[in-house]
Amino acid sequence: MNDEAVPFDDRGLAYGDGLFETVLVRDGQPLLWDEHMARLEEGCHRLGIAFPGHDRLACLPACSGPGLHVLKLIVTRGSGGRGYLPPTDAEPRLRWRSSPFSPRRAHWTDGVRVRLCELRLGHQPRLAGIKHLNRLENVLARQEWSDPDIAEGLLSDSSGRLIEATCMNLFWQYGPRWETPSLARCGVEGTLRAGLLRQCSLHEVDRGSDVLLEADSLWLGNSIQGIWPITSLVDSSGQLLRAWSTASLDRSLQAEAHALLGYPLPA
Amino acid sequence: MNDEAVPFDDRGLAYGDGLFETVLVRDGQPLLWDEHMARLEEGCHRLGIAFPGHDRLACLPACSGPGLHVLKLIVTRGSGGRGYLPPTDAEPRLRWRSSPFSPRRAHWTDGVRVRLCELRLGHQPRLAGIKHLNRLENVLARQEWSDPDIAEGLLSDSSGRLIEATCMNLFWQYGPRWETPSLARCGVEGTLRAGLLRQCSLHEVDRGSDVLLEADSLWLGNSIQGIWPITSLVDSSGQLLRAWSTASLDRSLQAEAHALLGYPLPA
Repeated sequence: MNDEAVPFDDRGLAYGDGLFETVLVRDGQPLLWDEHMARLEEGCHRLGIAFPGHDRLACLPACSGPGLHVLKLIVTRGSGGRGYLPPTDAEPRLRWRSSPFSPRRAHWTDGVRVRLCELRLGHQPRLAGIKHLNRLENVLARQEWSDPDIAEGLLSDSSGRLIEATCMNLFWQYGPRWETPSLARCGVEGTLRAGLLRQCSLHEVDRGSDVLLEADSLWLGNSIQGIWPITSLVDSSGQLLRAWSTASLDRSLQAEAHALLGYPLPA
Repeated sequence: MNDEAVPFDDRGLAYGDGLFETVLVRDGQPLLWDEHMARLEEGCHRLGIAFPGHDRLACLPACSGPGLHVLKLIVTRGSGGRGYLPPTDAEPRLRWRSSPFSPRRAHWTDGVRVRLCELRLGHQPRLAGIKHLNRLENVLARQEWSDPDIAEGLLSDSSGRLIEATCMNLFWQYGPRWETPSLARCGVEGTLRAGLLRQCSLHEVDRGSDVLLEADSLWLGNSIQGIWPITSLVDSSGQLLRAWSTASLDRSLQAEAHALLGYPLPA
């Protein structure tokens, strides 16, 4: 573990000038490690931060003990610079912590209630997709509700396109076709989503919120929790917009996802 | 001084979940203090962070010794929470550091060369104006050039409206009329700009980059450096778009600004 404090002049603190990953680790073995490393490397490339190196990172998951853990790692650009201009010799700072973890297993089977968030994600293609440390939009969106029966909030962008949930990606099904929002303008490209795009027939599309009322089923997923079916959708005032039964769900995407994470497929 | 390190779980580091101010201090007396405190309080209100309190903050400038200093203070939401959801009992963390400072006096008189940035600021009205810790757009924009003869870069938003420079606000003059971009969708409401809006005839407007070619004079300013006239403007490839002479400049806005900061008016 190296979760020591970061100094006042760290640019991750000063400007959110850095990246993070949260990795599911089972008995010291990371899940979706290639996807996490690819996203981190892409983030470093986009921000102009030196990638800490595969060898240095690859040994971290093994430090988690037996059982399930979440490994959180933060890479900042390091210290210093005159204002926003990074120093040419910036030395990236790596911090990481591993914590025991249990997924919300009941959500796999029973599904979740979600709401529509009022906040609209702004467009910034230069930062879209990567998991940088500028996450105030997510924090503001997550503060919109406190009801523990609402598991997530769905976010649209300033043009009305559906994008993601506050900490999960969104998927839906039209008959045999599976789709997920394009994240070219905003949103985070989750590593579970990346794994599914690699091995399933899953299509990235631009769609407005009308899809929520039309799709056969809606799902939320990330690399820590696995995949949850959405069973009810409420608007930002709590009004029910639609409900789905879990009785005849096509759980094929969930099966693919849970295979990637070593999670069981609900019966 | 309280510039000690912040822990791994600080939300300022994790998500940029906080705010900062950089205050000019002369012989222990802060300049534009009311404007800095008003912006910080507004930022705390927007993010739902408890404001640290006027009394606690008001004693900080006096800790700077004689001469000019910049007092940087950072307020984060504090530690913890489950993901993006802040803990209900979050205890804000205050850090601050005072450093000796000298403004770039030659720029007051001789003016500066500036460039147009390629990055476009995204729209996020929920975060516009406040000085939060999510500053990757500024960092990316500032990385677009390394030529030390270029003092600043001008930023437009995704709709093509002129907004600000990477760490300064923008002002221009049409005959007797002074204008500055509206910051309702993005950008930082500088405290010098706030002081000028309070006491001058200065109008907030939405304008595209055509104003750069039409205005009688262009200026950049912030509460640390004072106000610089722009004497040449280049595009992102370095091509000269326009030049201005300092010979017959109307320095009335600069006079007002420098009076607010205790800086001299260039002869």
